[in-house]
Amino acid sequence: MAPQDGAVVGAADAAADAAVGTVDAAHGDGPVRFATSPDRYNHWKLMIDGNVATLAMDVTETATLKPGYELKLNSYDLGVDIELYDAIQRLRFEHPEVGAVVMRSNKPNVFCAGANIRMLGKSTHDHKVNFCKFTNETRNGIEDATENSHQTYICAINGAAAGGGYELALATDHIMLIDDGASTVSLPELPLLAVLPGTGGLTRLVDKRKVRHDRADFFCTTSEGMRGKRAVDWNIIDESVPKSQFEEAVVQRAREFADKSDRPRDAKGVTLTPVNVDYGADQISYDHITADQISYDHITIEIDRTHGVAAFTIAGPSEAPPADARGVAGQGVDFWPFALARQLDAAIMHLRVNEGEIGTWVFRTRGDGALLAAYDRLLQDAADDWLVREITLYLKRTLKRVDVSSRSLISLIEPGSCFTGTLLELVLISDRSYMLDGTLEGSNLPPATVRMTGMNFGPYPMGNGLTRLQTRLLGEPDKIEAAQKTIGDELDAEAADGLGLITFIPDDIDWDDEVRIAIEERASFSPDSLIGLEANLRFAGPETMETKIFGRLSAWQNWIFQRPNAAGEQGALKLYGTGQRSQFDKKRV
Amino acid sequence: MAPQDGAVVGAADAAADAAVGTVDAAHGDGPVRFATSPDRYNHWKLMIDGNVATLAMDVTETATLKPGYELKLNSYDLGVDIELYDAIQRLRFEHPEVGAVVMRSNKPNVFCAGANIRMLGKSTHDHKVNFCKFTNETRNGIEDATENSHQTYICAINGAAAGGGYELALATDHIMLIDDGASTVSLPELPLLAVLPGTGGLTRLVDKRKVRHDRADFFCTTSEGMRGKRAVDWNIIDESVPKSQFEEAVVQRAREFADKSDRPRDAKGVTLTPVNVDYGADQISYDHITADQISYDHITIEIDRTHGVAAFTIAGPSEAPPADARGVAGQGVDFWPFALARQLDAAIMHLRVNEGEIGTWVFRTRGDGALLAAYDRLLQDAADDWLVREITLYLKRTLKRVDVSSRSLISLIEPGSCFTGTLLELVLISDRSYMLDGTLEGSNLPPATVRMTGMNFGPYPMGNGLTRLQTRLLGEPDKIEAAQKTIGDELDAEAADGLGLITFIPDDIDWDDEVRIAIEERASFSPDSLIGLEANLRFAGPETMETKIFGRLSAWQNWIFQRPNAAGEQGALKLYGTGQRSQFDKKRV
Repeated sequence: MAPQDGAVVGAADAAADAAVGTVDAAHGDGPVRFATSPDRYNHWKLMIDGNVATLAMDVTETATLKPGYELKLNSYDLGVDIELYDAIQRLRFEHPEVGAVVMRSNKPNVFCAGANIRMLGKSTHDHKVNFCKFTNETRNGIEDATENSHQTYICAINGAAAGGGYELALATDHIMLIDDGASTVSLPELPLLAVLPGTGGLTRLVDKRKVRHDRADFFCTTSEGMRGKRAVDWNIIDESVPKSQFEEAVVQRAREFADKSDRPRDAKGVTLTPVNVDYGADQISYDHITADQISYDHITIEIDRTHGVAAFTIAGPSEAPPADARGVAGQGVDFWPFALARQLDAAIMHLRVNEGEIGTWVFRTRGDGALLAAYDRLLQDAADDWLVREITLYLKRTLKRVDVSSRSLISLIEPGSCFTGTLLELVLISDRSYMLDGTLEGSNLPPATVRMTGMNFGPYPMGNGLTRLQTRLLGEPDKIEAAQKTIGDELDAEAADGLGLITFIPDDIDWDDEVRIAIEERASFSPDSLIGLEANLRFAGPETMETKIFGRLSAWQNWIFQRPNAAGEQGALKLYGTGQRSQFDKKRV
Repeated sequence: MAPQDGAVVGAADAAADAAVGTVDAAHGDGPVRFATSPDRYNHWKLMIDGNVATLAMDVTETATLKPGYELKLNSYDLGVDIELYDAIQRLRFEHPEVGAVVMRSNKPNVFCAGANIRMLGKSTHDHKVNFCKFTNETRNGIEDATENSHQTYICAINGAAAGGGYELALATDHIMLIDDGASTVSLPELPLLAVLPGTGGLTRLVDKRKVRHDRADFFCTTSEGMRGKRAVDWNIIDESVPKSQFEEAVVQRAREFADKSDRPRDAKGVTLTPVNVDYGADQISYDHITADQISYDHITIEIDRTHGVAAFTIAGPSEAPPADARGVAGQGVDFWPFALARQLDAAIMHLRVNEGEIGTWVFRTRGDGALLAAYDRLLQDAADDWLVREITLYLKRTLKRVDVSSRSLISLIEPGSCFTGTLLELVLISDRSYMLDGTLEGSNLPPATVRMTGMNFGPYPMGNGLTRLQTRLLGEPDKIEAAQKTIGDELDAEAADGLGLITFIPDDIDWDDEVRIAIEERASFSPDSLIGLEANLRFAGPETMETKIFGRLSAWQNWIFQRPNAAGEQGALKLYGTGQRSQFDKKRV
């Protein structure tokens, strides 16, 4: 599976690209754009050979997201990760035939040097945190593809893999390291930079690969890394392969994994065309975003900068679903649940990274709950179809993005809304939900209802492995059974409240005040403490590698990212590469 | 169970005490002392009435640990918690007859106002973190007493319980709130102080009491708190009891819990006499600690300030254990495992709080492994005895304190050592362990060995619910069975290495260098990143309420404790009570 063997999909000419816009447009203080496509990639080459894909890292040093650093040695910034995320999504949807993906490097002697250190040193605290979160989500996506899409990722480390480079390898299911007498894998963050291997590294070492904690300690404090027999014995890698046999072994292993996949080799993929978005009058001056209304085909977002609110209105489907999986394939990206996942994903990423002061997301819906229930039924009935499976997994991942967004989530269930099944998940995870009990004076809309579907009972687990309903009703498990019996029923406020689905059900008289106070109050609190509160309250119940990465590893890393020993003017992140050594404050806390 | 009903044990006359030393000595920048006893309590009254104890909070405002604040409204500082910890320990060991403990307040209309805010505002970051950790450990100890000592804690909230006050109640098994039309329970940290309810509050709400996350969100953002039917319906409290019936209901409930206990009503308790400690020549100037040698009866600690090392040497027992539980009772606090737990506990607390720049703890032992194995056998054979049970639980808790200490742990296994069973636990949790393979040149001691006992296979679970061996060998579970087969055998370096018990087994030639480098290297790293690394690597495997409290809640709180929105000059912690409002940086990270 050497790069030159496959057909190059969307081979970007990085030098040309750098001159024509993608890169330059991304430079500077403007918003971060998440939309890309293989023909615009600066950093990755995607090649397909039968049922095996190769995703080769070949970072263009100058094509950085912001100015002030160079992406040497296949080091990366958020821009590199945005392309990686795009490639992973396309492999799932556009390439049903691919059963295994080989990650490797196109640079000689280096696989990947990890997150760019100068970029980290120059970044604001919130950029570092957002960057790590997105990177973690992308890596979880690699694992989700392996486990649930049966598109298995393996890593062919054909050069040094340091820090985030090795963490990327950890996200794959099989790690092969070239034995060329020099290449190692390493997590040198602690000795070199005084921070953690924070994009999943520590957790994946001891929880996924079950490396003994004392060995992990040695490995993580040894900047030169590890190779050969000891690396295999310690389960740091799966195979150490002599240089002369490396390419052949990678091909063979990739074929083995690919041949075990149940993905259909003759199905037609769905091309991920760009997601439409309209920033209204501000679209032209997107570089200095002030857009107070953002419109996707099914989602409109109104931004209230005074109260720091992004008010989502999600429009349900306007037509009945197709009859079956073949109909879903026919609609492709226009199939409503698929379109919803893509637009919600795009909106979340934009708001997270480009609208940091907008601390509260309010969710409203409008539409026909019965239609939504029909779409959910189709997702369940056709769950065996590869594309329906992918769409459902994408909705799952997107809902998880909502869960780990550091924003207060408030759902408002009003007459005319359609919080049914898939969309009801937003209510279940919200920090607060309000459902109007009865009608609004002067409106002829019937009272609001919500509706459970089978999709609320399994297909969308949270990071903790439980459904949102299970997490919510940890203390009242008998209500889960009661809720399941209502599948398809329209539940009015009292019924929904009785089942534990809603926080408050004010009537017409109290509605405006209660909602207004909840939103204004949120804006008056310290965002830091809200972030901590929400991160602790949302994930009751069991823990998984994912909740550990987001709840524990990230919290420690965020703490360290603020400590003078790492981020201060004399901290290790700032001084790296200058030849100066940090003088650490030795106090343990 | 009104306070006046019982005999007062160690009723401190706080005013008198304040004049004679305990309080004054604790004031100022000197070290924090953890040794106390009921006759010196400033803040608690301990009363026993048959099989029910009452632990009443009655904080002396002026008896603060440091100057600059007053402990109004039963608010607390570390000094209050130190007395609480002492009382809990004494109830377990000195009062086998007590089956239930009622926590309440002796102040009118207030139960407890939580951690003192001015104290928090004036404290250094590391003091806040240490304070929260100790408080969390004490509360876990309350739960351990309830669950494993069958001494059930219940909380009679006879006045307002705010913040840490309610968190204290959450640590008990049954929460009764007086219905006097005014008293509430609340977690107002977020709205008032911009920090988290960080001593277990958030985790206990959603994981222990399984309060729905959206209700928990409302409760935690509502400074006025909650009472009555809604508080019961939401499971925030267990009972709301009319004022006129409150005292009677508390007595009745306490008796019910006490009568279900298996604790022996006719056994004789063991008095917790003071732990001997010798600070050498520096004992006199203890207020400005420079002691480089600290000696307990069985533990000596040498401090190397250049490399930030506290080198523990633990001496094993010098005599065979008594024949049975009766013999254990006869020896009381002198029974070697009991004495070990007390001395190790005292040493850990002292080093954690008073020696913050000593970042590495090195463990050595010396003695006869066979004798230690005999003690461990007795602990197992007499496990049904109440006192042996208590001693084992105390060892368990003390070993857990080691696990969550923010220090690098290195074990050195040399000829003459006795890392057997209970003491082997220190090796298993160490971030790094070195065992000399063979003998030292010039020494006639036989090669070092280690030895498993039954105590390594269950009685000392970590916070994650697994034994240290299970946590260590998550990836090689078959080795656990192999290790169990070696119980009692002397394992040389190679055998111990083969079982996965040890990190490295250098020989005589490499020993000095390898050990020296490991220790010196540790001293060269940023302590912050080491703390984060160790906290993430030590606790692989499942999570529990405890690991969530230490690994997640604490990490978030530590992060928030550093944010300007809370701890800055214009932060909420600093401005509380001044009438000024914080202007928060609204950016979400």
